[in-house]
Amino acid sequence: MSEFRQDPVTGRWVIIASGRATRPWHISVPNNPAHAGCCPFCAGSEAMTPPEVWAHRDPPTEANSPGWRVRVVPNKYPALENGGERPSETHGFYPSASGLGVHEVIIETPEHVVNMSALDAAQFVTILGAYRARLTALKNDRRWRYLLIYKNHGERAGATFDHIHSQLVALPVVPREAHDEINRAHEHFEATGRCIFCEIIERERAHGERLVLTSERFIALCPFAPRFGYETWILPRHHVASFEQSSDQDLAALAESLRDFILKLNGVSDNAPFNYVIHTAPTIESSHEHYHWHMEILPQLTRAAGFEWGSGVHMNSVSPEDAARLLRDAPV
Amino acid sequence: MSEFRQDPVTGRWVIIASGRATRPWHISVPNNPAHAGCCPFCAGSEAMTPPEVWAHRDPPTEANSPGWRVRVVPNKYPALENGGERPSETHGFYPSASGLGVHEVIIETPEHVVNMSALDAAQFVTILGAYRARLTALKNDRRWRYLLIYKNHGERAGATFDHIHSQLVALPVVPREAHDEINRAHEHFEATGRCIFCEIIERERAHGERLVLTSERFIALCPFAPRFGYETWILPRHHVASFEQSSDQDLAALAESLRDFILKLNGVSDNAPFNYVIHTAPTIESSHEHYHWHMEILPQLTRAAGFEWGSGVHMNSVSPEDAARLLRDAPV
Repeated sequence: MSEFRQDPVTGRWVIIASGRATRPWHISVPNNPAHAGCCPFCAGSEAMTPPEVWAHRDPPTEANSPGWRVRVVPNKYPALENGGERPSETHGFYPSASGLGVHEVIIETPEHVVNMSALDAAQFVTILGAYRARLTALKNDRRWRYLLIYKNHGERAGATFDHIHSQLVALPVVPREAHDEINRAHEHFEATGRCIFCEIIERERAHGERLVLTSERFIALCPFAPRFGYETWILPRHHVASFEQSSDQDLAALAESLRDFILKLNGVSDNAPFNYVIHTAPTIESSHEHYHWHMEILPQLTRAAGFEWGSGVHMNSVSPEDAARLLRDAPV
Repeated sequence: MSEFRQDPVTGRWVIIASGRATRPWHISVPNNPAHAGCCPFCAGSEAMTPPEVWAHRDPPTEANSPGWRVRVVPNKYPALENGGERPSETHGFYPSASGLGVHEVIIETPEHVVNMSALDAAQFVTILGAYRARLTALKNDRRWRYLLIYKNHGERAGATFDHIHSQLVALPVVPREAHDEINRAHEHFEATGRCIFCEIIERERAHGERLVLTSERFIALCPFAPRFGYETWILPRHHVASFEQSSDQDLAALAESLRDFILKLNGVSDNAPFNYVIHTAPTIESSHEHYHWHMEILPQLTRAAGFEWGSGVHMNSVSPEDAARLLRDAPV
């Protein structure tokens, strides 16, 4: 059974997901996440995963059989469990709540592809369409307060399978990072009447030193205070709070920008391990004016270590100005 | 030049230490941090490091020559620079400050030892004595508001040299993790009249399920809401705010507990990568009643990944009750 627990000293919530301890990489340190010859994410292995909850399929193929282009399944080792009405909570010195939530895997291609750079732009569009479909579906379930899509690429970035995939978690609470971001964006809006992300875009376009790429609809930039070397944010240039509000045209444009960025990142560091996350407005937040969805791409070329865990402050040895220049100049 | 920068959206501070980009592991992903045959931390290689700032030496040996048991040197690739009176700050939309601070390396043994478990208890005492000496010395410099000692053991935990060592950073500000911890400890003290750490010790001793080891002066326990599998805190059983207030008897007892814990951790997972941090009261904080120094040992058997970076919430697949049972039963 999973459980949310709060540290009484710092107020930090964690998810204790003991069921995940049965995952193959528990305790022993894996050197290679490859599962050669028996990949559960490849077409033909559909029976090795839980039944699909969504798929982009060529008609007239049937669910849980080949014929899909992107396939969404529940995580076989979920960190959270989708049962019950609302988390049962205990208060007092050690607060906790039952680990209610959704944990899905978005399998990004039926072939055994291990790097997104091998995909064409059309496949990126299909993946982003899966994100939009699942966010839209889960948003209607009133139990969820926050939806997070994230990707772990490479063993150093926490991937346990090399077949490319992303994940979606639905939470009954708004987690700390999102809460901080939304709160301060709200404060900025109250103080200035402006969306802080729109202001960042305007300043970075005027300044130029941290721009990575721009298109008609999207902008990619290295943020002023990045936690990681080559950290890059992709933002829609027009103000929009939620990813799932994206039109088909938006997704096509985002697919181009994201694919170009992945190619550039590979140009700077071959098969760089990275995480990305999509920060979108909380499901019940009335944050249309002050929040602006975006994607944060977090290369993992070095590691968070004792200093970061002990202080909460990241040391980053690559300035965003240097990173942006290298990425701008990298080939697509 | 290093620089503190604040993200305008989240308020998160980072250190941009571009000088560190010349470190050997920059951009390329290292597979092995060993530096066989030319280790700058071994006795006889003193000229390969900046001149020592402190050493525990056999008399009558001279500074920067062999004869030391523990040696403290400035980090050759410092994240912060120790020059100037106080950080010059810029405000406005993108706040920043010059990267004023101290960054030292504590070389834990003159021989090329790569795991603390090979050291005897006397050597642990010498290492802890070095921590106390440096904290005491730096505390008298009024520019520093916070001192953090941390250790990266193993490449997965961020170590770039395998010769065992720890590091010390002095900061002109109190960083987020320390700030949150101290603030909430203060609130708890105001509300209840008790130190929250003393209360944790009392509850965990009564409960027993999360205890790892106890001695007359120290206790090691898995916290209720750990971020990492096998995360363990070592706390002095008597109330004391600052590590540097430790007596020789305290250090001898801590050396025993820490060494026993390292041996137990190796019993559970051979040569487990881990970080540890010492959380001690800020230098100018009047926190003697409500704060309680402690050591947090953070094994890195799995990785923080997209979910953790995107949400600020850690998923941990090992419950602290399971971890404590395994560690209690592990041999010393």
